[in-house]
Amino acid sequence: MTDRRGSVLQASLLRLVRRGAWEHAKRLLEKSHPADIAHVLDRLTATDRQAVFDLIHSNETRADVLALLEFSARADLLAGLEPPSAAQMVKDMSADDAALLLRELPRGVADEILTHLGDVAEDVEVLLGHPEHSAGAIMSPEYFALPETIVVKNAIERLQQRGDHEASFYVYVVDERGYLVGVLSLRQLILQPPDKQLRDFMVPEPIRVTTETDQEEVAQVVARYDLLAVPVVDASNQLVGVVTVDDIIDVIQDEATEDMLKLAGTTVEEIQSPSMLRGAWIRFPWLAASFVGGFAGIYLLGRFEGVLSQTLQIAFFLPIVLAMGGNVGSQCSMVVVRGIATGHFELRSAGRIASHEVGTSLLLALFFGIGLAGFATFLGYGPPSFPAVVGLAMFVSMVIAATLGTLLPLLLSRAGADPAVASGPFVTTSIDVAGILTFCLIASSLL
Amino acid sequence: MTDRRGSVLQASLLRLVRRGAWEHAKRLLEKSHPADIAHVLDRLTATDRQAVFDLIHSNETRADVLALLEFSARADLLAGLEPPSAAQMVKDMSADDAALLLRELPRGVADEILTHLGDVAEDVEVLLGHPEHSAGAIMSPEYFALPETIVVKNAIERLQQRGDHEASFYVYVVDERGYLVGVLSLRQLILQPPDKQLRDFMVPEPIRVTTETDQEEVAQVVARYDLLAVPVVDASNQLVGVVTVDDIIDVIQDEATEDMLKLAGTTVEEIQSPSMLRGAWIRFPWLAASFVGGFAGIYLLGRFEGVLSQTLQIAFFLPIVLAMGGNVGSQCSMVVVRGIATGHFELRSAGRIASHEVGTSLLLALFFGIGLAGFATFLGYGPPSFPAVVGLAMFVSMVIAATLGTLLPLLLSRAGADPAVASGPFVTTSIDVAGILTFCLIASSLL
Repeated sequence: MTDRRGSVLQASLLRLVRRGAWEHAKRLLEKSHPADIAHVLDRLTATDRQAVFDLIHSNETRADVLALLEFSARADLLAGLEPPSAAQMVKDMSADDAALLLRELPRGVADEILTHLGDVAEDVEVLLGHPEHSAGAIMSPEYFALPETIVVKNAIERLQQRGDHEASFYVYVVDERGYLVGVLSLRQLILQPPDKQLRDFMVPEPIRVTTETDQEEVAQVVARYDLLAVPVVDASNQLVGVVTVDDIIDVIQDEATEDMLKLAGTTVEEIQSPSMLRGAWIRFPWLAASFVGGFAGIYLLGRFEGVLSQTLQIAFFLPIVLAMGGNVGSQCSMVVVRGIATGHFELRSAGRIASHEVGTSLLLALFFGIGLAGFATFLGYGPPSFPAVVGLAMFVSMVIAATLGTLLPLLLSRAGADPAVASGPFVTTSIDVAGILTFCLIASSLL
Repeated sequence: MTDRRGSVLQASLLRLVRRGAWEHAKRLLEKSHPADIAHVLDRLTATDRQAVFDLIHSNETRADVLALLEFSARADLLAGLEPPSAAQMVKDMSADDAALLLRELPRGVADEILTHLGDVAEDVEVLLGHPEHSAGAIMSPEYFALPETIVVKNAIERLQQRGDHEASFYVYVVDERGYLVGVLSLRQLILQPPDKQLRDFMVPEPIRVTTETDQEEVAQVVARYDLLAVPVVDASNQLVGVVTVDDIIDVIQDEATEDMLKLAGTTVEEIQSPSMLRGAWIRFPWLAASFVGGFAGIYLLGRFEGVLSQTLQIAFFLPIVLAMGGNVGSQCSMVVVRGIATGHFELRSAGRIASHEVGTSLLLALFFGIGLAGFATFLGYGPPSFPAVVGLAMFVSMVIAATLGTLLPLLLSRAGADPAVASGPFVTTSIDVAGILTFCLIASSLL
């Protein structure tokens, strides 16, 4: 339904822009949701995008659209703006969107825009002061908090005075020091008698995060407790902001995408960037790592040239052994990386995870090792020990691959590194080299 | 913060259960959030889990905990219950949670529980009547809808009569036929004068999905428009339910996990299941596919035994060529699968995606092909044409791998299949076989 809406908008807009029917295009944009406009702009060429963006009627909608664009499209549009006009647009954004945008820009440009922000600058600078991907960096400093001693009817009055407001489906309750002591929903507020004090029906000790909490952990908290927003407190328990669920959805989607692409040795930038050269550059490191690992493989095989030339058919079995090792290794690392990311696995139970993954793989290695030996017997290649050699090589290299695939992400994660980023290249390359070594050693000692 | 809360609870609970201090454990459970209890239960052995679950004070909390458990833990607990007591617990769940739970049970058991549900059965049966993973299957039939002609003060009264209620941060506005015509937030309701009619300030034509919409598309809609809930209408535009953002978060996380694990040839059940035999069984199909593909590789290499025995060193280069092809192919399929899942890629732009991915890979193939030829020259193996052969083999097999890695998920997706499920085994196995064939053909014709 809504996707159809986006497609229709895109087709109509493009037609109008191509025809130069600017007035029509303008009217169409006025009736469109900023998210739909952003969706369309993401898919246009740079020239068309700029043309359509300039047609957007109000500065506010332009700001909304800008915040919703994908990284590369936003960067394109901002590059065409002078800092004062960019600042004009940033002013109309919520502080958290503004901070995220400024983080994407080169430091010099961001600083210049900040000097043009006027009184909004302070809110944005607070957010920029927190480390990237922390709750303090993604929180909104606009929330609705009331003292615990206020009564319901005054609370509703305050809400009415305050007017429309992004995050006010929860009312946070603070004590006289500004410490967070309770929470209630708007709904609960409406349901209570007008003279009741908030502290008499608020939910005490609400779930909270601190400004330091990593956004992935914030996402886990929001997901686990089914929250619409989570309050953010500073080190002294003073309420300083809220992270709302719409931002959390972005975090969850982005983290999953990032993890997946990192495991494959590329990044989200490749999806969003139209340049092939840039795409190739992004993928290069992983392939280069694998390439260098491949050299090691060539070297190892050269060292074992004797046994290979004696029984050439053994070499036919190397690809299947390496492929099975690679597969079982990537199964293990995927399970571990995703288990850690979703909070299902905890690092302190690393031993249990490792033994489970390796144990599972051992069963599979046994099965496929025997299977390969059977197949080799059937083919009747080489000396009588031949089937045992290939079967054993399959078994051992699958077990080693599973061990590496499980332990490397766990170790990386324990060392504080992102398990996904290094697992892809690290795991596959080391599994390949280990597989070749195992294969050659077993072949040369048993044949 | 909250994660610490979970850990502390787990440690304390286990200590109390081991000591047999049931009364203490019971009091601790009373003070704990159902999500924390579920988190702890997921990590206990079956016996401990049953013991702790039985200690939970109220039927309602037990129902909450049950709904929040992971699949295998929930299945374990339910297996120990007679249908009437299971039904007692299901009655305390929201209809959408109840329907999800019943879908997990064997048909016979689910039907028997349904007969014990009394008047709740009808709501649950409506949900069960919709296909799995559709908006109709995950929606909550409890929402707050009012006629468009009602005035603000009466709307607030109705809300107060209705009492506490899961999804009432939005008020949906319907016409006399029950068709969805508008939406407003509780906040907007409070801000308006008491005698204003809803239709005079509601947001008309709210974004909606139909009962048929796939949950992944529902998630994309909620994420794109930053909604807290999306109304679900039937074919005639009659409002029949809402999908709330907390369910959407589960969908987004589950779909990402599923996609990742499918690409690696395993499933989420493996993460959650404690049985290694079960884990091995889940992973088996992908490995078996790869195993059979490996046989094809052995057969092919056997057919080219002549050229290999003539220039043995050429075989040393097979692993690096296969590894690089596998890597570039999995980069392409990961980008495509994730791009489709997040809505970034649309199938109608398949041609553009394919040419971008393959073009990027072509640049890389060129670079690494030349690099490998250079390395072979340096090693001085074989006849003069040797470096050109391995370089060309690398280039061609990387390009073929990229093409397969890009096109297979796109074709599968266009054919209505889940691109992730088949891409893993399909892509890697076909890339391996294609790589061996390319390698052998080039070697035999040029050496």
